[in-house]
Amino acid sequence: MEKKGILERLAQGPVVGDGSMCFILERRGYVRPMLWTPEAVLEHPEAVLQLHREYVRAGADVIQTASYSANEERLSYLNSDNVEVAHLTSNINEAACSLARKAAEDNNCLICAGLSPSPEYRENADEVAARNQFRKQAQIFVEQNVDLLLAEFFGQIRELEICAEELKKHNKPVAVSMRLGLHGDTNGVSVEECAIRMAKTGADIIGTNCCFDINTSLKIMEKIKTALDEEGLSPYLMCQPLGFHCPDAESCPMGYTELPEYPFGLEPRSMTRMEVHKFARAAFDLGVRYIGGCCGFEPHHIRAIAQELNKERGKSPPVEKIAPAFGKGASKSAVGGERASREYWYNLTTATGRPYSPALSKPFVRSDEKRFL
Amino acid sequence: MEKKGILERLAQGPVVGDGSMCFILERRGYVRPMLWTPEAVLEHPEAVLQLHREYVRAGADVIQTASYSANEERLSYLNSDNVEVAHLTSNINEAACSLARKAAEDNNCLICAGLSPSPEYRENADEVAARNQFRKQAQIFVEQNVDLLLAEFFGQIRELEICAEELKKHNKPVAVSMRLGLHGDTNGVSVEECAIRMAKTGADIIGTNCCFDINTSLKIMEKIKTALDEEGLSPYLMCQPLGFHCPDAESCPMGYTELPEYPFGLEPRSMTRMEVHKFARAAFDLGVRYIGGCCGFEPHHIRAIAQELNKERGKSPPVEKIAPAFGKGASKSAVGGERASREYWYNLTTATGRPYSPALSKPFVRSDEKRFL
Amino acid sequence: MEKKGILERLAQGPVVGDGSMCFILERRGYVRPMLWTPEAVLEHPEAVLQLHREYVRAGADVIQTASYSANEERLSYLNSDNVEVAHLTSNINEAACSLARKAAEDNNCLICAGLSPSPEYRENADEVAARNQFRKQAQIFVEQNVDLLLAEFFGQIRELEICAEELKKHNKPVAVSMRLGLHGDTNGVSVEECAIRMAKTGADIIGTNCCFDINTSLKIMEKIKTALDEEGLSPYLMCQPLGFHCPDAESCPMGYTELPEYPFGLEPRSMTRMEVHKFARAAFDLGVRYIGGCCGFEPHHIRAIAQELNKERGKSPPVEKIAPAFGKGASKSAVGGERASREYWYNLTTATGRPYSPALSKPFVRSDEKRFL
Amino acid sequence: MEKKGILERLAQGPVVGDGSMCFILERRGYVRPMLWTPEAVLEHPEAVLQLHREYVRAGADVIQTASYSANEERLSYLNSDNVEVAHLTSNINEAACSLARKAAEDNNCLICAGLSPSPEYRENADEVAARNQFRKQAQIFVEQNVDLLLAEFFGQIRELEICAEELKKHNKPVAVSMRLGLHGDTNGVSVEECAIRMAKTGADIIGTNCCFDINTSLKIMEKIKTALDEEGLSPYLMCQPLGFHCPDAESCPMGYTELPEYPFGLEPRSMTRMEVHKFARAAFDLGVRYIGGCCGFEPHHIRAIAQELNKERGKSPPVEKIAPAFGKGASKSAVGGERASREYWYNLTTATGRPYSPALSKPFVRSDEKRFL
Repeated sequence: MEKKGILERLAQGPVVGDGSMCFILERRGYVRPMLWTPEAVLEHPEAVLQLHREYVRAGADVIQTASYSANEERLSYLNSDNVEVAHLTSNINEAACSLARKAAEDNNCLICAGLSPSPEYRENADEVAARNQFRKQAQIFVEQNVDLLLAEFFGQIRELEICAEELKKHNKPVAVSMRLGLHGDTNGVSVEECAIRMAKTGADIIGTNCCFDINTSLKIMEKIKTALDEEGLSPYLMCQPLGFHCPDAESCPMGYTELPEYPFGLEPRSMTRMEVHKFARAAFDLGVRYIGGCCGFEPHHIRAIAQELNKERGKSPPVEKIAPAFGKGASKSAVGGERASREYWYNLTTATGRPYSPALSKPFVRSDEKRFL
Repeated sequence: MEKKGILERLAQGPVVGDGSMCFILERRGYVRPMLWTPEAVLEHPEAVLQLHREYVRAGADVIQTASYSANEERLSYLNSDNVEVAHLTSNINEAACSLARKAAEDNNCLICAGLSPSPEYRENADEVAARNQFRKQAQIFVEQNVDLLLAEFFGQIRELEICAEELKKHNKPVAVSMRLGLHGDTNGVSVEECAIRMAKTGADIIGTNCCFDINTSLKIMEKIKTALDEEGLSPYLMCQPLGFHCPDAESCPMGYTELPEYPFGLEPRSMTRMEVHKFARAAFDLGVRYIGGCCGFEPHHIRAIAQELNKERGKSPPVEKIAPAFGKGASKSAVGGERASREYWYNLTTATGRPYSPALSKPFVRSDEKRFL
Repeated sequence: MEKKGILERLAQGPVVGDGSMCFILERRGYVRPMLWTPEAVLEHPEAVLQLHREYVRAGADVIQTASYSANEERLSYLNSDNVEVAHLTSNINEAACSLARKAAEDNNCLICAGLSPSPEYRENADEVAARNQFRKQAQIFVEQNVDLLLAEFFGQIRELEICAEELKKHNKPVAVSMRLGLHGDTNGVSVEECAIRMAKTGADIIGTNCCFDINTSLKIMEKIKTALDEEGLSPYLMCQPLGFHCPDAESCPMGYTELPEYPFGLEPRSMTRMEVHKFARAAFDLGVRYIGGCCGFEPHHIRAIAQELNKERGKSPPVEKIAPAFGKGASKSAVGGERASREYWYNLTTATGRPYSPALSKPFVRSDEKRFL
Repeated sequence: MEKKGILERLAQGPVVGDGSMCFILERRGYVRPMLWTPEAVLEHPEAVLQLHREYVRAGADVIQTASYSANEERLSYLNSDNVEVAHLTSNINEAACSLARKAAEDNNCLICAGLSPSPEYRENADEVAARNQFRKQAQIFVEQNVDLLLAEFFGQIRELEICAEELKKHNKPVAVSMRLGLHGDTNGVSVEECAIRMAKTGADIIGTNCCFDINTSLKIMEKIKTALDEEGLSPYLMCQPLGFHCPDAESCPMGYTELPEYPFGLEPRSMTRMEVHKFARAAFDLGVRYIGGCCGFEPHHIRAIAQELNKERGKSPPVEKIAPAFGKGASKSAVGGERASREYWYNLTTATGRPYSPALSKPFVRSDEKRFL
């Protein structure tokens, strides 16, 4: 049986992305905190493969390669930190593709290779160097025959345009995604202009990922949709937000990384799966068709996206057999069995358990928003 | 090299236990929510093994078998729920031992087999049936040559005494542990009396686990310590609390299971690793020598226990190489690198990110504590 | 028409006390913060009279003299603080009676004179000096022909017994009231023992006031009721709690004064009138018959007590004419008119408006309760 | 001695306004909740006078007449509500002036008469009727020889312009003030345009009042200042915000009245005086020179404004003698005396005391801001 491609799938109904790799592998002990380099694909392949498989089991249709930060500059820190064995960037990217491909077999999934912004562009606005980096990465991913090329986590629309140009040279579906909060891109280009320029790159899929929470991301997606509609543009929309609630970072150019809790104090902000159900429904209703998660999204969160959309997708995730949504089917005699209903969880306001904690933090000074008191 | 036994290790310094199995495997897609049966040891052994290995990597000295709920009654639900393949209880327990043993090899760890309360005793106070169940389980575990027998999660001191009698018949170290909040055992036997009776079973190690958070558990351990001191008893002390903050359940006989958020809305209550550092220090200062976690404790939480006690233990966990505590050593150029210090995280009050959530919930009516308003 | 006395009124149904004097007059600019001395009765009599009248208008049946801290020692601070004009203690107490009497005329109210603990007893356990102070104060109040003598705010049951002995020498109804949280009196005498000893003084009315919030105070009143019932004692019960929520002070011997917010940061803890409705109902259901408030209770809070008990009292407060409970009768065309119902307010969970504030504070070290983390 | 006028005072330094009348008199029992009509000036003049005097004592330089809602339409509700005695609008306005004047004598204060929006304009955009109403009210106030005419609480800039035209016909200083949140006026006219049009009315003082909290109001004042600077306009600036924290109403056209807690559940949102100190400082630093409060500001809040600016004003409020800021001078032996410092209160994060309450509410549907989850 030939696998359906991403565009065919999107034409038929909503597609479920996967969740966080770096953040979750850091907690499991396989990724360096703050550096987030993916040498685990070579050093602990079984741990990476296991996480991929959990996303497949949770219902993801697309598995992203564990290649975040897999560029020369970030990997060079490994040497500077006196790490014994450093790895070739190409080896890491190839191994990442191989592990994603292996996991994807379990449920006929597609694999997607992600490219991130170039340090050279960020620091020197060096378009030539950036283009070079994107070209090389794309080449590896095309050789590895991935199903989708994704430029994601871009903070500057100009750099994303350069990357998209390189990706469009190959005969592959292309997606582009920015980290966008209320402020627009990090140079203050408005969300609406970013939306139109993303669409005009010719990418098949455009959207947002990381740095902002589900509520902010939905607001941004609505702005994007409106802007595209006004221009008569209609790429597929994707949304892969943070798995942490951070309304306090909504106006920060760098999103949640400006919060004092980043990266080791974010647990209280983790979403419940019921909140993800609501997100998935709201995103679908807005017209988003590629729905997944970024940092902080765990397998049970991806499961919540998939199960919320069981009907629209005409299928349920592999885990459904033992864990239908909301604990449905749990024996009445089991502890908590009486809570096994959608209604119970939808109407519950979960407490934080933290009477000594405030609800919000004051972001570091880079926030756009002034608070006087 | 001969492995040192648990008692030798405890004599030398603090021992680190492992974390949650059921809760974490449920999120990963391998355990039935609310039922918590461990058939994954047969159906998805690689997923169970991976989680064991993460605890080893995080610094656990002892790996517990994934055998919670592995008794006839709980497993029988699998049939009643029309599950295709049911498993023999003995097969599950044997597989659980085998996976724990495999993971333990990585870092010279011990394996511990856990026995839980008997449904027959809970429902009919049937001492004969309960004793029978404990005898059979103990037999399997002894045949599997585990390093430690642990009767844990007991709510009634009388039942625990029966179990301890059976365990003491074998030539193995024995630990006994109750779920104890402010109310004492579920029949209202005081914490102090439970402490003394646990010690008088002759168990080498006594303590508490599950159902209550780190703060409540420390209060209870202090009561236990005081009661034992007054009686001149001095077993080793163990503490393996919940990984969720639940001060609102402190006076509930069934602990956090009486909160409306149990089991799918607990994420906001998850601990940060810095809170676990403080717990480990406070537990050690109280004289607790076996320190681990129960439901909700993830690998990075166990890492926090181990790293807090690096000096006292004279060693650091395997993960230390890439992830020293507090992000220490992270390149200054990495995002967040300036936060890589113990002082920063100790002094941070983390926000919840949830301005629409209250801090506490009202437990279901079984709570001992009356609230008028 | 002869006024009915307090005991006749209590025999007929619930009696409504008044609210805070010191705290509210401090906010209005007439009482020294932290010192709380009542020289305003001489220096700004119109301000004191106005506040008394507001309580009458709100439905109070009894007006307490503004004589808190009106003893030699506290007043002596005025000199030490280089205050120009100091006043004779007797002048202050007489003026306080006179103002209360004037306000009481408006609605046929009774006046109650309060005696507080003796500094000499607190510092030196000097029973003779304390008895002397109580005798002199009682003498003035009896000469002023007050309707009720009240020994209140006592932290030590022994001192209260001495005071009660002096009060019982006069032919007046006597009430005695302690500030009691979970810890019992400040020497650790249990709530139950305090209850029985208060009743055995022969006081007509016994109860609690100040330092603890409505929820804690109700818990304590329930303990008191149970203890009295077991002893076959049946004085009238009174409860005049704090107007601030402070669950975090429940186990502190000195109650809310141990919180870091005392006394200038307590506003967020102020009760809504709907919470007072619930308090009044719960207190009445427990058998409390004298229901009022202490520090932080404002006129609209006293109104809430009175209006909740309109039916039981067979009358409504003077303010009812323009302000029935819950805004009932407000024109629909008025802003907010649609919210003019009991049901609306009973079911509302009010937000704090403070996303940067935690719910609880850590009391100063005197708290009985240990928190580890 | 001739009193200095408002413009002379503003030229010399910051001027302190007074606080809430309606809200506070409602709590005291003299104003109808939700209707907010000021018939108390005739029925309970001593209560109104007392509150005025408290503001004088707290340091207010200007006392506003208790004439909110004193227009024909609002007063007509009194009849429709079957109130026995209705009053002539002119009688109410005259009595309001008389009481303010009496209180102002105590400390050489000015009196300010406020005009509010016209119901006819709101409902039918009837410019003629509105102008008529403003003309008649202004006439009364001029006859009463008030020191300042203030058009305040306007939601529509066009209506304010009409009112200002009428006020400018008299030889009196004129101030105009709108209730402005992030959305601009209720027709969506931007804050910046409102600022410029307010200044172009020729008013001596322009600014904002009511409906939004101190933080939002400061943000708006900053926008106003910037807009005026760019146009080269320089009227004096005034700011009289709400006394309740309501960040959740920041984007609501009607501000805090759209919150479910309005008007009976707002207590938890009340400011502490320390927060007002910070507000006064920030407002002064922004260039605001007329600083007071609106609904929810109590006498101790006005005291905080005055005391924060003691140095800039070259004087302290009458209450200073017994209550300097931060409890300074409180005897060390007094309870809490050790907290008598500015530093203590500035660094304190006050808790809410409400572990069962969330921080924010969801405003009614009129909010401009979309929240998805």
